[in-house]
Order: sequence, then C-alpha cells, then structure tokens
Amino acid sequence: MPPSTSPTRFAYLGPEGTFAEAALSAVSSAGGSRYPQPSVPAALAAVRSGDADAALVPLENSVEGSVPATMDGLADGAPLVITREVFLDVAFVLAVRPGTEQAGVRSVASHPHALAQTAGRLAELFPGVVPLPVSSTAGAAAAVAAGDFDAAVCAPIAAERYGLVALVDDLADTPGAVTRFVLVEPAGALPAPTGNDKTSLVAVVGDRTGALLALLSEFAVRGISLTRIESRPTRERLGVYSFSLDCEGHIADARVGEALAALHRVCDDVRFLGSYARADGRENVPVPDVAADAAFADAEGWLAGIRGGPSPR
Amino acid sequence: MPPSTSPTRFAYLGPEGTFAEAALSAVSSAGGSRYPQPSVPAALAAVRSGDADAALVPLENSVEGSVPATMDGLADGAPLVITREVFLDVAFVLAVRPGTEQAGVRSVASHPHALAQTAGRLAELFPGVVPLPVSSTAGAAAAVAAGDFDAAVCAPIAAERYGLVALVDDLADTPGAVTRFVLVEPAGALPAPTGNDKTSLVAVVGDRTGALLALLSEFAVRGISLTRIESRPTRERLGVYSFSLDCEGHIADARVGEALAALHRVCDDVRFLGSYARADGRENVPVPDVAADAAFADAEGWLAGIRGGPSPR
Amino acid sequence: MPPSTSPTRFAYLGPEGTFAEAALSAVSSAGGSRYPQPSVPAALAAVRSGDADAALVPLENSVEGSVPATMDGLADGAPLVITREVFLDVAFVLAVRPGTEQAGVRSVASHPHALAQTAGRLAELFPGVVPLPVSSTAGAAAAVAAGDFDAAVCAPIAAERYGLVALVDDLADTPGAVTRFVLVEPAGALPAPTGNDKTSLVAVVGDRTGALLALLSEFAVRGISLTRIESRPTRERLGVYSFSLDCEGHIADARVGEALAALHRVCDDVRFLGSYARADGRENVPVPDVAADAAFADAEGWLAGIRGGPSPR
Amino acid sequence: MPPSTSPTRFAYLGPEGTFAEAALSAVSSAGGSRYPQPSVPAALAAVRSGDADAALVPLENSVEGSVPATMDGLADGAPLVITREVFLDVAFVLAVRPGTEQAGVRSVASHPHALAQTAGRLAELFPGVVPLPVSSTAGAAAAVAAGDFDAAVCAPIAAERYGLVALVDDLADTPGAVTRFVLVEPAGALPAPTGNDKTSLVAVVGDRTGALLALLSEFAVRGISLTRIESRPTRERLGVYSFSLDCEGHIADARVGEALAALHRVCDDVRFLGSYARADGRENVPVPDVAADAAFADAEGWLAGIRGGPSPR
Repeated sequence: MPPSTSPTRFAYLGPEGTFAEAALSAVSSAGGSRYPQPSVPAALAAVRSGDADAALVPLENSVEGSVPATMDGLADGAPLVITREVFLDVAFVLAVRPGTEQAGVRSVASHPHALAQTAGRLAELFPGVVPLPVSSTAGAAAAVAAGDFDAAVCAPIAAERYGLVALVDDLADTPGAVTRFVLVEPAGALPAPTGNDKTSLVAVVGDRTGALLALLSEFAVRGISLTRIESRPTRERLGVYSFSLDCEGHIADARVGEALAALHRVCDDVRFLGSYARADGRENVPVPDVAADAAFADAEGWLAGIRGGPSPR
Repeated sequence: MPPSTSPTRFAYLGPEGTFAEAALSAVSSAGGSRYPQPSVPAALAAVRSGDADAALVPLENSVEGSVPATMDGLADGAPLVITREVFLDVAFVLAVRPGTEQAGVRSVASHPHALAQTAGRLAELFPGVVPLPVSSTAGAAAAVAAGDFDAAVCAPIAAERYGLVALVDDLADTPGAVTRFVLVEPAGALPAPTGNDKTSLVAVVGDRTGALLALLSEFAVRGISLTRIESRPTRERLGVYSFSLDCEGHIADARVGEALAALHRVCDDVRFLGSYARADGRENVPVPDVAADAAFADAEGWLAGIRGGPSPR
Repeated sequence: MPPSTSPTRFAYLGPEGTFAEAALSAVSSAGGSRYPQPSVPAALAAVRSGDADAALVPLENSVEGSVPATMDGLADGAPLVITREVFLDVAFVLAVRPGTEQAGVRSVASHPHALAQTAGRLAELFPGVVPLPVSSTAGAAAAVAAGDFDAAVCAPIAAERYGLVALVDDLADTPGAVTRFVLVEPAGALPAPTGNDKTSLVAVVGDRTGALLALLSEFAVRGISLTRIESRPTRERLGVYSFSLDCEGHIADARVGEALAALHRVCDDVRFLGSYARADGRENVPVPDVAADAAFADAEGWLAGIRGGPSPR
Repeated sequence: MPPSTSPTRFAYLGPEGTFAEAALSAVSSAGGSRYPQPSVPAALAAVRSGDADAALVPLENSVEGSVPATMDGLADGAPLVITREVFLDVAFVLAVRPGTEQAGVRSVASHPHALAQTAGRLAELFPGVVPLPVSSTAGAAAAVAAGDFDAAVCAPIAAERYGLVALVDDLADTPGAVTRFVLVEPAGALPAPTGNDKTSLVAVVGDRTGALLALLSEFAVRGISLTRIESRPTRERLGVYSFSLDCEGHIADARVGEALAALHRVCDDVRFLGSYARADGRENVPVPDVAADAAFADAEGWLAGIRGGPSPR
C-alpha cells in the first residue's frame, strides 16, 4: 500500500461561513480546495466515494453534547478514521449591515440551534422581536446581506464573508461554548504518534451485568485513561449496547494496541476510529513506567525467554 | 411530611400538537390541565416555580441521542426527579390541507430535526423542493393550516389538531425511531417500587485513571446492571467528568440504596434523579439471590450480632 | 449479655519454657494463671469448654509460614475470636548445663522445626553430631537438665527455666525470624477500636473464575487494605476454596462492617475471627476521607433523605 | 540450546521408604537412579549443582498446608521449574515386625508430623504409651526392624521395605489426607501443553491498596482461573508481599503468556515456576472462546492490519 499523502480536497458542513469552515481553516491553512456539503452524512459520503480526501465534521459541542449524525456516520458504513481534532470557540455575533443600530433591528434570523443558545440575550436586547429560524447561521448572514432580515446570529467568519459587522459580540447565553471538530479520512490513514495523542473507537457489548465493567477493565489494567464515554442506542439488536470511547494514547503504543486487541476479543464488535494528536490544550495523564512501551518490550522478551527454553518434550 | 398527590397540572414542550403532547396523553389520560411551554428549560422552570406539578420532557431519542437541554436541566438547578418514563414511536407524517395532492406540494416546512430525519424521503418525493425550517413540527402544521406552506412534517396528532390529513405516513428515513420522555416532579416524589424499576442519577468524578471504573464497580459488586451511561461535558471545571446513568432497580432496594450511598462517598457529586417503573417493555436482569433485599437484611443482622457482643473493654 | 471481663486463665502451647509461654508473658504480665497444653487443638478446646478464658497460640511464622493447626482450629468448631496479636522474635539459643564447653557437646536435641532452622549452624559448630528430634524445644531443655543430652536448641526462657546457660546465642540460620501469636477468646469478645486495628476472617467461595476477585473487590471498593491472604484446602467439598484473610481496620468501622456484610452475602460462608490492635509496629494505610466513618454516616443521611420523601404513591 | 532430555537421576526427600519415594515411583516408573536427600533444600541443591536431573519434593499437604521449605526453595536461588505434579494419598500404617500383636506394642515411634496426624488413634489403641519422635517415618520403620521400638507410624512402602507388616491400616485421625509433590528441574525445561495444564509462579507486589486486586485482574480479564493463592512473608522488605499462585493453563497459551507478561510489568518481581499437566483428577474450567488462542491470534491480526496501514505521515 502506498504511503498516504496529506489530503487536499476537504468536504465540510457548509455552507460557506459556517463554524465548520472556520475550523477547517485551522486544519488546511496551507491550502487545498474546500467543498461545502449540505449535511454531515453528505460530507462523510464524499470521503467514502473518493470525491473528497477528508471531511471536517463536528463531533461534540460543550453545550449541545455529541453530534449524532457524526457518531453514527463513523460507526456505520465503510470504515473511516479520525486523523485530527480541532476545538473551536463558538462565539456568536449579532451581524448587521454596516450602519444598522440596535434600535433599527426589527428582525433576527439564524439556525434554530444558534437561536436556542442566544435566546436569553436576544430577548433582552430585542424584546418583542420573534427570532426567525433559517437553515444555517451562514444562510442567515447571507439573507441579512440581501436585506431579507435586519440581523443574523452567526459566526464572525460569516459576518466578514457577507460584508456585515458585529453589532454585538459574545452573544451566547452561556459563554465559552466549544465545538470539537474532527478531520475524517479513509481507513488506513494513521498520523504518527506525537506523545500526546488520543484514540477513538466504538465497542459493542452484549447485555450482561458487568459487560461495560469488563470493557473498562481492559483499559484500566493497562494504565490507560479514558477521556470520553457515551452509550449509543443500537435499535437493531435488543439488549446490545454500543459505546463510543476516546482514550489517551496512540494505537502504536503497546498498551493501547494490546487493549484494543483485547476489546476485539471480548466485545461483540469493535471499530477503530483513529489515533491523532490531542488538541484540547491538555496533557495526557503521565504514563506509568509499567505501562510504557519499554516495559511491554521487556516483558515480551522475558516471556519469549521462558517459552523458548529447550524444545518441549 | 404529607403524602404526595398525583400531579394534575402538566407542563410540556409545546406548542400543542407536538410529540411531547402525544406522550403526555399516555401519562395523564385521566385528565389534568396541560400547559405547553416554549422550551425544555421553560417546562422545567414551571415545575420549579410551582406553576406546574410536573413536566413531560424528552430525554433521549433512538436516532438523535440524548437531549442536552433535558440532561443539563435536570443536572443543574433546584432538584427535580423523574417519576415516570414514556416511550413514544416517532412516526412522522407529511401533513397537508385536505385535497392537496403530491403534485401540488411546492413547499415543505418543519423543525430542522424532523427535516433531518426525513431528508431522504423528501428528496425522493419532492425533488427540487427545498425544505424550510421552522421552530416546531406543530408550528409547521399550524402554518400549513394557515396556508403559509403546502406541507408539514409533523406528528399525526398535529395533523389531526390542525385539520390536516396525512399525505404520506411513516416518512422517516430510518423507520422505528423512538423517543423516551420523562415525567419530572419536584424532588421528594418517589413512586413505590414495582419490581421492574429504573433509577437515574448524575455522578461527577475527578480526573484520575480509573475514576469511572471505580464508579462502575460500586454497581457491579452489588449485582446492579446499568442500562445507560453517558459522559457529559462540565466546562466549569477542567478535568472533571460528569456521568449520566440509568441503572436497574429502585432506590428503595437495598442494593441500589447502598450503591448510591457509596457513590455519594466516592464521587465529587451525585444527584439522584428518580426511581420509576421501567416502561420500555423489557424486564430487568433477574436479581441474584445474594443481591436481594433478603440477603442484605440477613447480612445486616449477622453484622449486628458480631458488633453487638459484650461491650468492648 | 453482661460485659466481658479480661481473661485470667490462659491456655497455651506448652510445656513450660516454650516460645508460646514467652509470648504469653507479653499478654498477661499482670498475672493470671497459665495452663500449658500439649497441642494447639487442646489449647483451643480448653477455651471452648470454658476451662480457660483465653488461649495463646501461634498463627504464623516468618520462616515456617502459617500454622495449620491454628488456622484450621479457628475456622472449624465453635466460634472463637482473636482479641490480641503478639509478635515474638524467635531467637534460638544453644542451651547447655553450666560448665559445658563447645568441645564437650556430643549430642544436640530439639523439636524438628527448631533443628531445621538451625541445621546450618549446628553442622558448622558440631560436625559429625547428628541432631536428635524430640517433641518440643522446652522438652529438649528439660532433657539436657536431666543429663540425657549435652545441648538443646531452645528459647532463652527455656534455658533460664531449666537452669541452663546459652553456649551460643542467635543460632538460627536465618536470623530475625518472628512468630505471630494470637490470643483467642470465645466469640463475642470484641476489643474497642484503637485506630490502628486489624480484622481477621475466613471466607469460603465456590469454584468459579473471578470468585476471589469478587471477594477482593468488596475490600477494594471500600478502601480497605489486606495484610494477609492465604488459600486453605477444603477437602470436604471439591472445587470450593477457603481464604484466610487479615485486613486493616476494625469491625466497628463502617467500611469494614459493610465489607464483611457484603462477604456474608456473596460468599458461601464467612467466619469473623476478630478485630484487635495491630501489634507488628506498623501503621495502617491512612484511610481516605471517602472511606471514613464520617463519610459513611453522611452518605447514609443523604440516602435516608432521598428515601424518606413524601410517602410513595 | 539443545532439546532437554527426560531426567534420569532423581533427588528426593529421603531416607528410603518415605512418602516422597512412593511419589517418585509414580514419576519414574521406567527407572532412573534415586538419590535420597536429608532435606528439601538439599534435594533442590542437588538439581542446582547438577548432581541430579530432577528433585521430587512435597509442595503442600491437605492437612498441613504448604511446605515452606519447598515454597521458599523455589522462590529463591537459581531458577528451577516444576515439570510435573503428583498427588499421593498419605495413608499411615502402624508397622510392626511379623508376629507382633496389638497387646505386645509398648513403644511407638515416628516423625513428629506423623505422630501429630495419628495422635488420636494412637491414644485409643495404646493408652499409656508415649509416642517417641524420630527424624523420619522411614527411620522409625528401620528402627522397628532393628528391634529398637515395637511399632512405627509410616508409609506402606516403608513397612514393605523394612520387612514389617501393617498391624493397623488408615491410622490417620483425619483420613483422606493428600500430599502434592512436584518434580523440579532446572529452568528451561517446559513440558508440552496437554490441554489440561497448570502454571505456577511467585509474584512480589508493593504495599498499596489494591496491589493484589491489580494482580488478580490480570488473570480475570483474560479468563484465567486460579487454583491456589498464598501470601508468603518477605522479611527482607517491609510492606512488600509475595504471592505464590497456581493458575489454569500453560505458558504456551496466549492468555497465560500475556497475563504473565503483564505481571512482569506491574509487579515488583515475578518468577515463573513452570507449566505442567494437571494431575489432581480435575478438569480446568472450560476456556471461553474469547480467551482461546484463536481469538488472540485473530485480534493480533486485526491490530496488525490497523497499525500497518499506509506509512504514518
């Protein structure tokens, strides 16, 4: 198999001016072409079909929680892997045409999620104005530029793109929201370990007391910390649970590899979703000496010595 | 403390005609007054303020996953408890004014979630028609009745309420979606055990390897099965994880009570979110004899006998 | 039940002059009568029959390991409990009649265990002399006093008692051996907690993978350290394992009481063998706050508050 | 390293006529030379020095428990491994010269352990006769043959060897005692797996809560049952525990090999003491599919596939 090359054609959750595009800028600063897609499934399908090299899609949001379309889109269908994560502050602005003042705002539009996260502030600023839902935050900005509405709740990048200005910054009722985006590529892509990596996977376990405990024990006995765990519905099979997990470390690490191999044995199903550099600004828990690669190598040598004594009689 | 009485004033996620109202019918068939609320937080606030006795809100959906507003609304603020769960098949219909035929549908509106779950079918049925997002499925039905749009993706109850007819049944791309609603009351309400109960809670644990394993061990050593586990973001404190859990059994059961008391000790924080009859049509895993109330009572008597020997010297 | 009184009649593994008598002096310095017994079972039987208030018997030795007669004698028969532990340095001397010099030693006698622990030194000192086994170290000393042998390997106390002198001190091949004796009383006696206690028990578990792990988990989830664990044969029932355990803490401690109650539930059988002051000169592992009595009391109050809400409907 | 050959020179705990020699007959029925040794350490030393190819020594007894000299002799010094286990019924007989009748028995001699296990019967049969301790059961038989005593408590093989007859069979107070002997060879010898094997080891762990639990977890997560566990004193280092363990399976089994490698990582020290055919007449617990070699091989292949994708960028 030839070595992979860096992706140059990026699908993302469009249209232009969305937060996803802003996150993409962090990933593909050096260039590459960008293909906005109408939905997460469409963005993932573009990678599976080969129309794009990679897709940047939202995985979870600190306010809204995980993004089901991404979770399920990675768990099902042809295998894809995460090769990068990007955290983006979701700072909403109230974008207006230049010259518009607060008193002149009589209509506000945005995507319903954005309206939900700014409902309190909007009610304070514009009592009596009923916010109007549209299909995307960027679309709202475009509509304001076109004169359809007076103001849009959108990303700063959208305001800029459509020639609007921010009448209000930091519009969110709960400031500090962060969305975690992931760059997804065809299975096989595997970034080199950086020393501060995360590994994502989906594990399906049967309906028995302690199944999850058994699953977690495989990480615990090898000194691996989890950073996320979520149960996902699996309607297809009654009493079968699917867990979406992020753990610290890289599949190339001995402890992570052995743990995933163990899950492959004991779980009904395991899907590897990638190992990639941790990007949330935190450091992994220090790996204890007994779980380091050197300890695994030493133990393997010791075992080989025992097993490889004189030929069995 | 006086015995609680059954709730008679119900808040729910409105407007009239939503799935939440359909679910409420399963709960309050005997009557009571219903107060539609514009949002989940508003519905919960109505219970906290005493304006309503109970609120029926969505907790999770088999396609969309958990509902963050409900999860967070229960985890924060004045304590509330779940006293009942209701599972509702989410069957979308395409509602039109009587007499409208497929060829005459040139505009379709609904809540963005409903549009997302029917995007494939809509594209097949109405190529070229761009679905329009509005703030609720019931609102879309009302707008169709008012002549603003030709068709709405909504619940059957909404079509009925607004005098519409279903041009297409079972419109969902993934049929069989189910939403789990919960009836929420002020803390203190506690339905009697039925023998097939669930208990919900939120536990916050610090950032250390094995914290989740330790948490789960408290259930495992007492023979308690979990039916749901989910990690929730806690932006406030770095490296602190919040887990939302459902387990089998009732807080009145010795094993569940002891497990929750243990969590109260070992976790940074635990919030009890109620014990209530399981309503998903499944039976709890049979409780092993050694985890039954009788075994706990026997063990307690044994321990008391040992401790209560002659007074210590 | 009347309060217990301190024991005044002590059985011990005789004859006079054994290490057991030396250990007894540490326990009953204030007096009391002493009844040497021919065997550990005889000493335990004296307590069970009421002929003695307590028995001092050896439980384990740092060189020889556990003492089966004591282990089994506590695990079977009418319940007895340990109320005290005593550690005694096992310093062997070579005892001779006054005036005997090394060159004049042509015969050496002792209990086989003592001969085994001094075989190397004896061979060095008296090449060509074949040591003679007799039934106790003290009996060997008595026989030397009677002129039957030239030298005895025995405890300093035996040399003194029989008018002998130590020709060689510290005769053991492995110096520093320590024997742990325990004072055993009828079930019910329970010394008050001292803050640095140990608890002993025997647990019988069935033949299944993880039975021992389950047993240990009951201690681990409650933050209790084990100081000894040993599997004992149970010939009576195939595939059933008996574990003899010491843990830190006192049965009066909430965490220890709850752990033992849990074992009572999940094990085939559990026998409580006493809580008593730790006497090996070490401090227990500090109890984490979450496992302290205050944390248990707080959790119990919290649970009662939840359970004791309005009467269940 | 050349293939090992079957041992032909056997050391054992002598003198001739002991139970150890009887057990040796089960091992070396085809012949070989036998070298009785005065002690367990001497027997092990004969193997370490090359004077013998193997030693047959007692490891544990169903009445007396483990044999410290063997336990410690395997744990310390140059590495040795167990290549076989033999279970021998310890049936004591009362051996007399032909023609001696019960009324004519005025003196009885044996090793103190044998006298202890038959004390009750001897007191019944010969009230007033004080049993005399000698250095071995076989030595007692020899002394009876020489006319020094009237009767010996010894193994049937000793009676036979010294021309005595059994006046009483099954003399033990607790019938059914069994001693487990092990055949010990220089490290490196490794019998081929039979499908019903045991593996022995010694693991040293530091003084921290949960150290033993961690150790056991390594077996539990890999579906391996333990058949024996015992804590041994380690005087050298305060607060350090040594565990002597037998588990089901062979070091050549993937699950056992991985578990031992894990112990090598997480324990302060691990010594492999051999894999050998189980000989107690029981079958190992069936290995679950997920712990079978095929499952390990499959998981390893899966992992290699993930890791061996395109070269990391």
